[in-house]
This record gives sequence, structure tokens and C-alpha cells, in this order.
Amino acid sequence: MNRFSADLSETEVHFLFLTDYRRLEHIVRKNLPRWSRVPPNLIDLREYRHERLSTMRVLVIGGDGYCGWATALHLSSRGYEVGILDSLIRRHWDNELCIDTLTPIAPIQTRLQRWKDLTGKTIELFVGDLCNHAFLEKAMLQFKPDSVVHFGEQRSAPFSMIDREHAVLTQVNNVVGTLNLLYVMHEHFPDCHLVKLGTMGEYGTPNIDIEEGYITIEHNGRKDTLPYPKQPGSYYHLSKVHDSHNIHFACRIWGLRATDLNQGIVYGVLTEETGMDELLINRLDYDGVFGTALNRFCIQAAIAHPLTVYGKGGQTRGFLDIRDTVRCVELAIATPAAPGEFRVFNQFTELFSVGDIANMVQKAGSALGLKVDINHIENPRIEKEEHYFNAKNTNLLSLGLQPHLLSDSLIDSLLNFALKYKDRVDQTEILPKVKWKG
Amino acid sequence: MNRFSADLSETEVHFLFLTDYRRLEHIVRKNLPRWSRVPPNLIDLREYRHERLSTMRVLVIGGDGYCGWATALHLSSRGYEVGILDSLIRRHWDNELCIDTLTPIAPIQTRLQRWKDLTGKTIELFVGDLCNHAFLEKAMLQFKPDSVVHFGEQRSAPFSMIDREHAVLTQVNNVVGTLNLLYVMHEHFPDCHLVKLGTMGEYGTPNIDIEEGYITIEHNGRKDTLPYPKQPGSYYHLSKVHDSHNIHFACRIWGLRATDLNQGIVYGVLTEETGMDELLINRLDYDGVFGTALNRFCIQAAIAHPLTVYGKGGQTRGFLDIRDTVRCVELAIATPAAPGEFRVFNQFTELFSVGDIANMVQKAGSALGLKVDINHIENPRIEKEEHYFNAKNTNLLSLGLQPHLLSDSLIDSLLNFALKYKDRVDQTEILPKVKWKG
Repeated sequence: MNRFSADLSETEVHFLFLTDYRRLEHIVRKNLPRWSRVPPNLIDLREYRHERLSTMRVLVIGGDGYCGWATALHLSSRGYEVGILDSLIRRHWDNELCIDTLTPIAPIQTRLQRWKDLTGKTIELFVGDLCNHAFLEKAMLQFKPDSVVHFGEQRSAPFSMIDREHAVLTQVNNVVGTLNLLYVMHEHFPDCHLVKLGTMGEYGTPNIDIEEGYITIEHNGRKDTLPYPKQPGSYYHLSKVHDSHNIHFACRIWGLRATDLNQGIVYGVLTEETGMDELLINRLDYDGVFGTALNRFCIQAAIAHPLTVYGKGGQTRGFLDIRDTVRCVELAIATPAAPGEFRVFNQFTELFSVGDIANMVQKAGSALGLKVDINHIENPRIEKEEHYFNAKNTNLLSLGLQPHLLSDSLIDSLLNFALKYKDRVDQTEILPKVKWKG
Repeated sequence: MNRFSADLSETEVHFLFLTDYRRLEHIVRKNLPRWSRVPPNLIDLREYRHERLSTMRVLVIGGDGYCGWATALHLSSRGYEVGILDSLIRRHWDNELCIDTLTPIAPIQTRLQRWKDLTGKTIELFVGDLCNHAFLEKAMLQFKPDSVVHFGEQRSAPFSMIDREHAVLTQVNNVVGTLNLLYVMHEHFPDCHLVKLGTMGEYGTPNIDIEEGYITIEHNGRKDTLPYPKQPGSYYHLSKVHDSHNIHFACRIWGLRATDLNQGIVYGVLTEETGMDELLINRLDYDGVFGTALNRFCIQAAIAHPLTVYGKGGQTRGFLDIRDTVRCVELAIATPAAPGEFRVFNQFTELFSVGDIANMVQKAGSALGLKVDINHIENPRIEKEEHYFNAKNTNLLSLGLQPHLLSDSLIDSLLNFALKYKDRVDQTEILPKVKWKG
């Protein structure tokens, strides 16, 4: 692949820098010892590149949500020009389902004003629905993004399993929103990089190692590298699989560039930016619909509610700290996929079983003087409760991700937060009400 | 698997017959020599089974379309109680796109009346949209199907590639219709067998053999049988991949039974039933949107229009005669998938490259005194024009399918038909107008 010798001229380095930064990186890494001989201006180029990245325009779709809000602030703080596009429907669904985030979140306009007051940085806001193509096109033409980070989907598996209406809503909302985005990119921003939030749940629990998006299969004496087979576990997870297939196709036929982040279960509420002020606080869901396992356990521990482990608790999943979510997205943006490339990163830092994390919360709770019981309740989902699970996540590490580890952040970033807001807990929200059997 | 000896008692045979006919079949096949010793009443049981099948109620969704109409009549003729559910939207799309079937088709009500006059058999008609859940539920509750054959989708790749609106229409229409059906089956007909029309195009053109729906993968010393990786080539083909994932999930969590027929390119217009009367005639599409390669070539040959091979013509695909389509569906119905099973059959009988079939049409045309030229035109699609392609289709053959071969039916079933109606050809419809690049 390396068509150049390590002794690149300044012009060649500059050219590669502008046209194919990934190859340049590759050459740099491959020739590290010899690069002591590189012209000093490579350093200048890196400075220049940093500068250029810092003026990169990133539209965060779903930027009012849990991951989206943390990501938008992080990127803004790092010097990117950030816009948020969000329909605010998630706040509406909270009302409909009579649930609420543990942490009191401010209206998006207040959040953004506070961010500007504190940092001097403006985040442009577009309130509207991704499924409304005319609105999306207008917003994109106005903002002119270099990258789009797409969190703007219905993201709860139980929500999608409530009934037929919610299954259809989830799939139509997610699939049509993403299709609209692909068409606007194809027509107006063919070089824009799409960073799309997928989920580790697309893979299910196969009895072989989970690779990152693709697997090389030898079969009857022939060989090919094909999309990794998917066995998603809810109509929500299915919608993400549909998206992945659609985006992959758009990259193949239109030459779009995309990175699919197959994210694990995110935990934590604090990031450097959202922790700056009470008005910037991020949401923290603990209810049976939108609450993810670890966040829910911490809140249960804080209010002396037994941890509710679904079934045997042997379900193993990938986890990551929300501080790593925002960093992963930044890494993906800073090193874009090539034109036509559909790149897949498995975005998690550690693997735990649900039983493991219940035990860790119990232990951490004890250290804070909390008495934490663990209850195994009937599993509302249909899933294997004991299975092989070994997933790869080397791509993001190789881009430089330095993971936060759960053992370090459990108490500071989660349990103490849960304790601080425990008076806001509504116990009736905690138990699962949606069953997969319908 | 065979828990029984070959010497089954009459009761055991009867029990197996009613509860697990597939295992009985398996035992019969495995022990064929010894089954000369089976009690004579097994013959009676087969008779009884035939009788029972003959009163099976089959709802054909999309029964006014090309494959659906032929299938509905065939099943009705074989003694099944048949209903047709169709929104008639395809006739509307013909008007919209200003295209028409070569063969003049009668209104569905006229077709059904003629069928009744000729055979005494009634086919119940439900006109409405699968995406309308209330309508579907009402129709299903009224008809009470034992099997549903689902052809009711937008089925053209070029149609889905016209623009964003048509891509979204195709995916929403196909995915939501199938989701609605799955929910009605789950709620009201959990034992009903879904026979769903998929497409061989779900697989794309991998560099390894294409298996039937699943592939056993050995990877890093472990092994699993997983859904075959999909690389569909249009937003339409993608919609079928989405369906397959959704149906597979519904079988896993709800125990529904389904057979996904990954059908190749169908050719021919005559079946035993549609050939009985001019009013029963099936549609034959030759336009650039709905016309499939072989049908289009025959009509081009009939009017001395050069055959339009897209690109190099090395694209290899599975093909089958429409008389085999109807027989495949009947075989799938007669031997249903087990509860919870998502069974996949690759439904084609022969593999040809597009160039091959152009040559065959040319040769057959010459035999009829037609002068047939072959033109290679710019490929409107984005697809590999030279590639490995080897797909398995053993499941339907093992159920007893006796394929019609293209070499035998080309002249009788297709070219002569094209000649008969050639005055109806509108040449402006033939060339492709939709390009994948958009």
C-alpha cells in the first residue's frame, strides 16, 4: 500500500496530508525510527492540521440526548465548530411514558446559552425532525458540515418492544432519518464524513469472536471478507442493522465516507464539559425503558433498592464510560473514513457480564457505606443468559483511545452522582414493564 | 434426530403425521427400502394428509401481481382455499410511470369471476393496504389463514433507485407491511406459516459459495452457524434484507414459523391456470423499471429491437420459470417450517450470466426466423460485471421440485407470447431511465 519511500519531500507530505491523511499516518507509523530524519516542517504540518481540524464543522444530530449532548460540548470545547440538530422528541417521550432523568436537565436553549456564557463558544441549534427531508436539507445547507455525528434515533430496545406502534415508529424513524441524511449528503455534501451511532447489539451473541464489522470467511476452498452476520435482539437493534446495511450500500454506490460506531452500553454522567455547571448537566436515565443496566444499578444502590439483574445475569456485553464515548467520536472525526469506505469500530472498552457489574456496584456501594442487595428478576427480554462473548475493539485503541476503566470511575462518576440526586428517584419507574413475548 | 425405529406403529405414524410431519418425512426417506414393510394405512394417512392440505386456507398477499396471480390460481386449482389481499397499487404505479404490461390484464374482480365461472372455485378478495394494520387485522380475522404467502411488496430495484422518495417509499412500504403481518400473526395466528418472497439479490455477489440463508463459520478455533452475510445491490434489495432480519427475529422470540424464499429472476408468462382463458392472462413487464432481464430480451427479440445487455453482461444470477415459482410456493406450504423456525430456500433452478441468456434468446429467435442483435449498453446499475457466483438450491429440489429448464420453455412459453402481443409494445419504455449514481 505504501507507494512512497519514507523519505518524502515536503511537497509529497503536504499532498498526502491534504488528500490522504490516513496513508500519511500509516507511513509515519511504519517508519517511525526513520522519521527522526523527516523535515522539521512535518511538525508544522501537524500544527496546521490541528488548526484545520479545529475549524472543522461538525453537526451533531440528536445533540440534546445523553450521548449527543456530551459529545457536542466536548467537540465545541476542543475547538470544532459545532451545530446541534434535534427534534427534542426524546423529552416528549419522557412525558408520554411518565419517566424522567435523575438529573434535572435544562431546556436545550438554556443549555446552549450557558455554554456560550461560560466558554464564549456558540453552538448553532436546529430544532426539527430528521425524517422531514426539507428541514434537514435546509439545515445542512445552512450549517455546511464537514462531519455529521448521527445520534438522532430512537435508542431504546424496550421502547421498540412496547407494541406494534412503537416497533414501527422505531424502525421507520431510524431508517428514514438515516436515508434522508444519506440523500442530502449524496446531493450536497459528498465529501462529508458520516459518524453514525450503531450498537454492539447488532451482533447478538454468536458462538465465535465478534470482529469489527467484517469477517473473513473461508468456505469450500474460497475466501472473502464479508459483513459480519447480525443477530439483533429487538426491533430497535434491528433498526440499527437496517441502517448499517443502508449506509454500507450508500458508501459502495455513491462513494460516501462513513464510520459506524457499534457502541456498547454507556455509563456515567460526568464529562469535563457537562460537569462545568449545573445548567450543563447531562441526563441520567434509570427507568425500565431508557435506563441502561449499570446506570440503573447505581441509582438502585443509592436508594437502597435491590439491584434488578434480569435472569441469571450471565449476559456479557461491552461497556464504556461516557467520557470515552465523546473521545471515540472525536477520534473518528479527526481521522475520517476514506471516500467509499464503510468503516466499523466496536466502541467499548471493557467486557462484563450483567452479574459482574451488579457485584461491582455492590462492592463499591459497601465502600460508601451502602447496603446493596442483588435480586435476580424474571428476564423481560428473550436472550441467552449464558453464552460465549468475545468482541474485538482494536480500531479505536489503535487511533489512540486511552480508556477510563469502570473500576476507577464507578464511585466518583456514578455512585456519588446517584446519591446526590437520590431524592428525585421515582421508584415506580425502575422495574421493567415491557416484555419481549408481548 | 430419528428418535424412532423404522418400524413405527400406526399410532406413532399418525402422531408424527399430526405433530411433526417433517420428521416423519425424514424417517420415510431415510428408511425407504424398509418402508415396503410399513403398514398399508400409511398410504391412507397420505391420502388423509392430502385431503387436509386441500382444505388449507392460504392468503396470497399481492395476489394481483405477476408471481402472486399465478400462485393464487395454482393453489386454488390444487384445491387449497385461497384468498387474495392486494392494494392494487402496482396498477397505479404503472399509470404513474406511464408503462404497461405487454399482455392486457383484466381487472382483479373480472379475473376472479372468470376463474369461478371456469372452475367453480371462489377466491375471496380483500382490497387494501398491508401497511394499514386495522385493515390487515380485519381481513386476516375474516379469512383465518393457515398459511400466508407474502408477495405484497414494491419489487423493483430501479423503482427504488428513482430518487429519495421512491427509496423511502420502498423501504417503509415493505418493512412496515411485513411488520404488521408479523404482529397480526403473533397476536391472532401464532401457528400460521408465513411464506415470504425474498430475493437472491439479498446475497449480492460474494467470492464464496452462497448457501441457503445460513453459513457455518469456523473462526479462531470456534464454530457457529450464522445468517449468511448480505450485500444487497439497491434500496429495494435492502428492504428484503431488512424483512429477513425482522422475520428471523419474530421467529426467534415469538415462535412464529416462516419460510423465506430467496427467489431468482422469474421468466415466462404461461402457467397451466393463467393459460386457461384470455381473461386470466398474467402480466408481462418489459419496461426499464419492472421488466426483468429475460422477459425484456424476449420482447425485444419479438420486435427486432436489439437486446439491451447492461455492461459486460457477465453478471450471473439464478433464474426460474414462473411455473416453478408456483410449484415452489406450493411445496413450501405443504411442508411448513417448524414453530420458531426461520427457514430459507434459494428459489431458482438454473444459473446464467446475462450475456448467456442474451445468446440463448438470440439463438431461439433465429429458430423462429427472427433477426436478433445484442447491444451492450452502459450499465445503469452499480454492480460487478464479472464475478464468482455459485449458489445452492438444494432445499426445494429435496422437497420434490422438478424444474422446467429454460432451454425447453424459451420458445413456447416466452418468445411466442411476445410475438403474439408485439403490437402492444411501447418502445419508449424499454431503455433504462434510472441510474444508480443518481
